[in-house]
Amino acid sequence: MELPSKVLQSAVDQLSTLPGVGKRSALRYALHLLSQDKIAVHDLSESLLRLKTDLHRCQYCHNISDTEVCPICSSTKRQSGIVCVVENIQDVMAVENTQQYRGLYHVLGGVISPIDGIGPADIEIASLVERVRIGKPAHVDEVILALPTTMEGDTTNYYINKLLEPLGVKITTLARGVAVGDSLEYADEITLGRSIVGRIPFAS
Amino acid sequence: MELPSKVLQSAVDQLSTLPGVGKRSALRYALHLLSQDKIAVHDLSESLLRLKTDLHRCQYCHNISDTEVCPICSSTKRQSGIVCVVENIQDVMAVENTQQYRGLYHVLGGVISPIDGIGPADIEIASLVERVRIGKPAHVDEVILALPTTMEGDTTNYYINKLLEPLGVKITTLARGVAVGDSLEYADEITLGRSIVGRIPFAS
Repeated sequence: MELPSKVLQSAVDQLSTLPGVGKRSALRYALHLLSQDKIAVHDLSESLLRLKTDLHRCQYCHNISDTEVCPICSSTKRQSGIVCVVENIQDVMAVENTQQYRGLYHVLGGVISPIDGIGPADIEIASLVERVRIGKPAHVDEVILALPTTMEGDTTNYYINKLLEPLGVKITTLARGVAVGDSLEYADEITLGRSIVGRIPFAS
Repeated sequence: MELPSKVLQSAVDQLSTLPGVGKRSALRYALHLLSQDKIAVHDLSESLLRLKTDLHRCQYCHNISDTEVCPICSSTKRQSGIVCVVENIQDVMAVENTQQYRGLYHVLGGVISPIDGIGPADIEIASLVERVRIGKPAHVDEVILALPTTMEGDTTNYYINKLLEPLGVKITTLARGVAVGDSLEYADEITLGRSIVGRIPFAS
């Protein structure tokens, strides 16, 4: 598709770098912006820039935040002794949305993946160990490993467990099993197997 | 979905004003940008701003252009006596992609739609009439009405035809019929009816 303008072409090229956005969607976005007034486009442009200039990472949990310490870490209403270790910011939101967790988080910013060239030093593992060791922002009683159930997630779990074990902190991980609402016949065999091995007392 | 940061929330709100982009996609875009380096985000932001500052409308056909007169209107290789009237820029691209048309264009920027409050004065009808009347950038022999086959498109066709008729210019419209590759059984009855009434000599 040849565009009548280099300026438009450049905007389309830039927009199509967004995940899941092809040239056609990018063109649709660009033409939409073209039809908006200057202030609206300026506001959009400005808000994107601010993502890189005004956004901080919490100094404790590395979640994104408008302040040096995020609202979760600075809250007095959370159980500051429990730290849930997750891969990324989306996972924090996912856990928060369950409204079942009142502890703090630690965002690794990835998992150990030699294929992608990501080693332990590239993610926030050292800061997690330090956090447990010196007890900042609060003493840590329990670390919940909530990483994805992939080879990389398991490797990272194993690695973190090795480092934290000597510190005497309680280490737990998410329960694995058949999803709520799922039929047994559609559950994959590994999940079903684990949910049998890890069966729990029936509570009505 | 509650976001941990007002800056992120603002970017998500802004991105979800794009057509077809919901909060979830907007968040995905924002988090992607967050992971990009500052220069990449700056380039995107800049290219969007330039849409409103550096992009012109061709003074003759109102297509978007980097220059005062667009490459099509200023080309010496096009048939400058034929003007194809289309609703918007996308339609110019659609016709150009056929590689079957070598004339010029006139982009109305919409069609007459009383429900949406769009009257004849809100779109580029007067400039079309003027263009045919004074023959700029070239004398116009034929005007092809290539507006959508909707109530609004038909109304606009009718209105333009009324204004152009006294000027003695040849007025044509796109052939309507069964699409190439379509089975008759799947063609809608109006299209099939029109293609029978408007049947053409068989050419092998």
